[in-house]
Amino acid sequence: MIKNDLFLRALKGEIVHRPPVWMMRQAGRYLPEFMKIKGKYDFFTRCRTPELASEITVQPIRRFGMDAAILFSDILVIPQAMNVEVEMKPDFGPYLPNPIRDQKAVDNVIIPDVYEDLGYVMEAIKATKEKLNDEVPLIGFAGSPWTILCYMVQGQGSKNFDKAKGFCFSNPIAAHQLLQKITDTTVAYLKAKITAGVDVVQIFDSWGGMLSPSDYQEYSWKYIQQIIDALKDKVPVIAFGKGCWFALHEMSKSGAAALGVDWTCSARNARYLSGGNITLQGNFDPSRLLSPPLEIKKRVHQMINEFGKDKYIVNLGHGILPNIPVDNAKAFIDAVKEYKV
Amino acid sequence: MIKNDLFLRALKGEIVHRPPVWMMRQAGRYLPEFMKIKGKYDFFTRCRTPELASEITVQPIRRFGMDAAILFSDILVIPQAMNVEVEMKPDFGPYLPNPIRDQKAVDNVIIPDVYEDLGYVMEAIKATKEKLNDEVPLIGFAGSPWTILCYMVQGQGSKNFDKAKGFCFSNPIAAHQLLQKITDTTVAYLKAKITAGVDVVQIFDSWGGMLSPSDYQEYSWKYIQQIIDALKDKVPVIAFGKGCWFALHEMSKSGAAALGVDWTCSARNARYLSGGNITLQGNFDPSRLLSPPLEIKKRVHQMINEFGKDKYIVNLGHGILPNIPVDNAKAFIDAVKEYKV
Repeated sequence: MIKNDLFLRALKGEIVHRPPVWMMRQAGRYLPEFMKIKGKYDFFTRCRTPELASEITVQPIRRFGMDAAILFSDILVIPQAMNVEVEMKPDFGPYLPNPIRDQKAVDNVIIPDVYEDLGYVMEAIKATKEKLNDEVPLIGFAGSPWTILCYMVQGQGSKNFDKAKGFCFSNPIAAHQLLQKITDTTVAYLKAKITAGVDVVQIFDSWGGMLSPSDYQEYSWKYIQQIIDALKDKVPVIAFGKGCWFALHEMSKSGAAALGVDWTCSARNARYLSGGNITLQGNFDPSRLLSPPLEIKKRVHQMINEFGKDKYIVNLGHGILPNIPVDNAKAFIDAVKEYKV
Repeated sequence: MIKNDLFLRALKGEIVHRPPVWMMRQAGRYLPEFMKIKGKYDFFTRCRTPELASEITVQPIRRFGMDAAILFSDILVIPQAMNVEVEMKPDFGPYLPNPIRDQKAVDNVIIPDVYEDLGYVMEAIKATKEKLNDEVPLIGFAGSPWTILCYMVQGQGSKNFDKAKGFCFSNPIAAHQLLQKITDTTVAYLKAKITAGVDVVQIFDSWGGMLSPSDYQEYSWKYIQQIIDALKDKVPVIAFGKGCWFALHEMSKSGAAALGVDWTCSARNARYLSGGNITLQGNFDPSRLLSPPLEIKKRVHQMINEFGKDKYIVNLGHGILPNIPVDNAKAFIDAVKEYKV
């Protein structure tokens, strides 16, 4: 049904002639056509207007021809729907004016009707599927419950999410209640996305790597596992934990179809830690896209050789940065398409 | 000569009845007596006035009786001495109004006479040694050249130091020139500190973990190795790289007396990756000091059991946070002193 099924085949672990490629945040600020839309509509208008979200989603596919599209949206639509105000401040990032800091605030968090409160996402998926015309698969995503809690409690981005961690370690009961509410919402949300048409789901645990291995199991992984359990029989699930090299062994036994890794974990370490059998996705340092295009190509080929062409999805190790020249992004994608064993 | 030589013995790998303990940033904002001095004198006045710096250094030793003191100072006195302006903005952190972004700026960076430009640090060491009266050893420190470059180029703290990395990857020749200048300055600076009286030296590579393993070797580790080579026959050197688990094997062969590890690397992984023979230092999650005191003690004892009492120095995995209650810091130190095999 999907014409270019390279991505789906890599997720199944099938033999391929070259690995598929996409980039986290590929629908984003490094693209002039994205900046044009950004100039006219604010962040949440872009998320909430299916015509805009779908247009932004397909922009990078048109320009570069990646092997998968990822729906333009944001992980923070979840706290918004859960009755926690989220603003997106220019040159600052997310800002939550009423962060959660006690049991009462946790009690006030609601589990929303995702069709009612996040229906615009499902509409955006339908509009995107029409535009994609089954050329490539569409990825839907959500933040991990831990990562969502980080923002809900900290109230903004942070180098160490000290307030979020402090809340968990001084008030673990309330923290676990909040994590369960986020998990229940996320499962319902991703199920609705799948019904609306996404072919694959990725969980972004951007801040899991701030936790010790045992705290990661307790505060992050066990909730991600609930999400994987609820979805894995419907679509392939990719679990990406930035800085979570220490959990790759546990993650490899979870039923996830693939695991994302960042650039601090070498291909060799990632294969070793994940047991050698599961599809891996990553792990080019986003800042390395500031190298000259020829060097990018050389490094991409080296990366594919190190991971191996099978059971592998070429990607960055985190989202593409806004200051990457379009030609450099193109070199990254082209290098994969030009790859010969 | 030093009355409590537990720390020095652990650095030599000798058998001890319990591991020594100190805390990164132990002379800091969680202490009421520090806040009193902070209220009266700005940051660089505190660094530059030997009476103040030495007083701040011994405050935590008086209150808690750690097994080592670490000189109150800042890694950014180095760029300051190298002709790069550094401000410390309240509620913001370091700010460098003229960050280095091109070859010309690199050319303008000077290698200072450390006795002339950083003489106040040597005076602070002498004042501290007098106050300590040989009760415990005194640690001197410096940032790694990579970490110093991060601030010099980025101009402030950052989640990903994208400008610093972009500078290196698009202008590697200028980057290496800058790193070598910082390295030469740091070697001279630490040699002067040793002459002034510090018993041990620690290199803080706070941002090494932002690099891929191969970029870490190229942009960070090879300069740290130069520093270790220059100092290791004079005093024990501790190399601490936050997030640098992937380099522990290389680091273990460097001649460093001990390696610092953060809390994302379990004791078992740290021992395995570092070859099992070198003294390790760490790795309590600073946010875990927000747990209740009894739980802190339980977790500290568990941590010692996991690392083993020998070839081990109890510490946090990064600096103590400003919001830690004094009783919780006390619980951390007391737990080590109460430890029984």
